[in-house]
Amino acid sequence: MQPRISLITLGVADVGRARAFYEALGWTGQSPDGEVVFFQVGGLVVALWGRDLLAEDSVADDTGAAWGGITLAHNVRAAADVDAVLAEATAAGGTVRRPGAPTPWGGYSGVFAAPDGHVWEVAHNPAWPIDDHGNVTLRLG
Amino acid sequence: MQPRISLITLGVADVGRARAFYEALGWTGQSPDGEVVFFQVGGLVVALWGRDLLAEDSVADDTGAAWGGITLAHNVRAAADVDAVLAEATAAGGTVRRPGAPTPWGGYSGVFAAPDGHVWEVAHNPAWPIDDHGNVTLRLG
Repeated sequence: MQPRISLITLGVADVGRARAFYEALGWTGQSPDGEVVFFQVGGLVVALWGRDLLAEDSVADDTGAAWGGITLAHNVRAAADVDAVLAEATAAGGTVRRPGAPTPWGGYSGVFAAPDGHVWEVAHNPAWPIDDHGNVTLRLG
Repeated sequence: MQPRISLITLGVADVGRARAFYEALGWTGQSPDGEVVFFQVGGLVVALWGRDLLAEDSVADDTGAAWGGITLAHNVRAAADVDAVLAEATAAGGTVRRPGAPTPWGGYSGVFAAPDGHVWEVAHNPAWPIDDHGNVTLRLG
């Protein structure tokens, strides 16, 4: 299995509401049918799909939990950008779970939850460069 | 918020066991401290970290659910590659949840669960090209 993630699908209660949230954050959705919405997110695709349909397709036991051991992170180029993105998320209908603050690993981060409960960390990691295409490079400190 | 995912952190019960699983699939982990393991996965990073620590850091209510409405997908260039990756995952200690089969959207896919329950779809989507760097391009049919 080559090191590649191609698609991250978020199961949501209301695809239109979730689309509006991510579009308010500046992403551009496309939908072939109104049932699923896709966003080109750098070199991968993020999809929004009904949670019941996604659970069935994933052969997953859905207890309704908002968190199943996966946290997504969006890195930014400066600490001030963390606070700016958290403010955007709040304005779009998300909820800040942890405000921006310095981290033990020498960066700055905060956390918000999207309307369907998916958790996003927003982080500035000065050790990991972000190129012009948005790709991040892992560097151990 | 620019369209970018920088890091996906998987909360696991045993970081060493989870690292061995993904390394058996061909990924190469790096760890600054033995507590967290990072993989460069195309233009983003996948991390393995203790689920309790991740839940706390994410300010997430952890009910222990294996699935929280997020499914990851790994796209491959041919239908036969889906079956090959599912076989690799099984050999590495994963569990096939849905064997490879044609999909309603004109592709071919299957699903496996990693040892900590994280769900991966392995898919061949003939409509979405994969470039030499592993980046996928969204195209509506």
